[in-house]
Amino acid sequence: MATMQDIADKLGVSRGTVSKALSGAPDISETLQKNILETAVELGYTKLRRPRGTERKLCILAANIDYKEPHQFGHDIILGFRQAAEPAGYTVEIIAATEELQKSTPYDIFMLRNAYHGAFVLGFSLTEPWMEDFHTSHTPTVLYDNYIPANPAIAYVGVDNDEGMALAVSHLRGLGHENIGYLGGAPGSHIMQARCSGFFAALSQDGSTPDPACAGTSYYVTECIETHLPRLLAMGVTGIICSHDLIANAAMVRCQQDGLHVPRDISIIGFDDLPICAHTSPPLTTIRQDQIQLGKSGYYALESLQEQIPIGILLLHAQLILRGSTAEATPRIPCDVL
Amino acid sequence: MATMQDIADKLGVSRGTVSKALSGAPDISETLQKNILETAVELGYTKLRRPRGTERKLCILAANIDYKEPHQFGHDIILGFRQAAEPAGYTVEIIAATEELQKSTPYDIFMLRNAYHGAFVLGFSLTEPWMEDFHTSHTPTVLYDNYIPANPAIAYVGVDNDEGMALAVSHLRGLGHENIGYLGGAPGSHIMQARCSGFFAALSQDGSTPDPACAGTSYYVTECIETHLPRLLAMGVTGIICSHDLIANAAMVRCQQDGLHVPRDISIIGFDDLPICAHTSPPLTTIRQDQIQLGKSGYYALESLQEQIPIGILLLHAQLILRGSTAEATPRIPCDVL
Repeated sequence: MATMQDIADKLGVSRGTVSKALSGAPDISETLQKNILETAVELGYTKLRRPRGTERKLCILAANIDYKEPHQFGHDIILGFRQAAEPAGYTVEIIAATEELQKSTPYDIFMLRNAYHGAFVLGFSLTEPWMEDFHTSHTPTVLYDNYIPANPAIAYVGVDNDEGMALAVSHLRGLGHENIGYLGGAPGSHIMQARCSGFFAALSQDGSTPDPACAGTSYYVTECIETHLPRLLAMGVTGIICSHDLIANAAMVRCQQDGLHVPRDISIIGFDDLPICAHTSPPLTTIRQDQIQLGKSGYYALESLQEQIPIGILLLHAQLILRGSTAEATPRIPCDVL
Repeated sequence: MATMQDIADKLGVSRGTVSKALSGAPDISETLQKNILETAVELGYTKLRRPRGTERKLCILAANIDYKEPHQFGHDIILGFRQAAEPAGYTVEIIAATEELQKSTPYDIFMLRNAYHGAFVLGFSLTEPWMEDFHTSHTPTVLYDNYIPANPAIAYVGVDNDEGMALAVSHLRGLGHENIGYLGGAPGSHIMQARCSGFFAALSQDGSTPDPACAGTSYYVTECIETHLPRLLAMGVTGIICSHDLIANAAMVRCQQDGLHVPRDISIIGFDDLPICAHTSPPLTTIRQDQIQLGKSGYYALESLQEQIPIGILLLHAQLILRGSTAEATPRIPCDVL
């Protein structure tokens, strides 16, 4: 582990100057401070020696995720994290990780400058600028639903998507569905890729080779509903598993508009178990990921990383929630609708 | 959660009788006690109401694993577990999970009868009798290197084998090895299956389709060394990745007996980083799984399950340990040796 003296030696300045810069003293020029911070990061110096009693801070970095209202997806993840972190003595700050912020400041420097001990990262797409920084970061960081291999400072926390898809496929198979389709969201997100490959892995578990055409994915829900859904129905599918609840709900509405009865004519399964699922028509059978527990697991993984336990992947069990959108298969002749 | 009254109602006995049986009172007949315990398990009643101050006990169930001496594989896993569990107030007991024990007593009944709050399970093969019980168990249980899907009471803890194999393949590719083989142990263990499929996944990451013949696996190390190793060398491989260090060491010895220089003629990589790896000739490049941290993670996962956080999978980062058994590839003509 690098010391302040290592930083001082590398830059040819005094240890006192390094100490001042790291504590944000105003009599160090901005350029020198930046230089010292960057060197600290380069050498892997991330633990600021704080005076006793100084606040211990963690941050939640949020992008592309709504969390302010109780019904929004991120709300309970953040609540669970705070429920675990705050009793342990941490202050938790929520930061909007805008593209502007990510482009203006390297990740480790942002964390060091704000004296955060670690971060829980929510909603990042694969193209966020800091996703690149995570490969070499020295800061304990837990990513919800994103995976960075081979960096012992970074962990991935999420639900077991393979298990979730296996539960969904096995439920439909148990109801006699032999022709099962998939509708999925943006392939540009780690989790949409994981669910789609989990769907195919589940279909292959009986040794068969699934037809790639039985999955339709798109960045746009409308394209899923207007192009892929009719195509799957024309192929004679009797059950559809969706990458998330919002697509499942849109698919139910569209099927009903086209005169199909859900679940008598077509069974539909969502993923996530958003609060909306109990109130759709019919109520949606779905795969639950428990957001409070995901938040708590995020804190637990972050605490482990800080204690040098190099957690790489922590996945919660998925759970099948049975509601009214699935029923026994009624064989349908391909092309008889839409 | 079932109560004692539920058990009493189901069996048509008094709640007092149930309470006595669960606390092992001697005036309940053995048959009735067995009946009550089995019903308790059936109904999911696993939390004995212990009087305040009663000992809190966890057990480690060990099969097919050596752990008594510091150089043995299980030693530090158990040490890490105890290092985390005992300060938290638990007594940890180590139980030899013999086939006789597993066949004589259903798992949940064994745990209930001995008042264990949970178990950390080491070394189980896929055919151990209790592996079947884990699918429906209600007892918080963490399996080292074994995976049971869809039971929220059971977690899998281990190293990220995919990441380990990716590190090994990428290291050899970086040294110019294009023709890479694999030697692996018993396909009857979860972890040997995971490492073999991790090897092929790593080879496919560049988009190529690997030849299934480049892997040789067997229950017997001698078969790996006497049949598969010569076959791989005849195919012109210049680097071999092994499922565990003992096969890697045996392969190095055999290559040297046959006049090949390790690593000049052939690079060899192990997996696990047993203490022996620093003392083989040459010292073995390998993938480390940190046993102390695995043990600690086992305890943390068990604690989480007890707090109803349904951890399914917890994998530690793998780490490439560079020693002397790998070097730049020297192209070899297939069939020129052995």
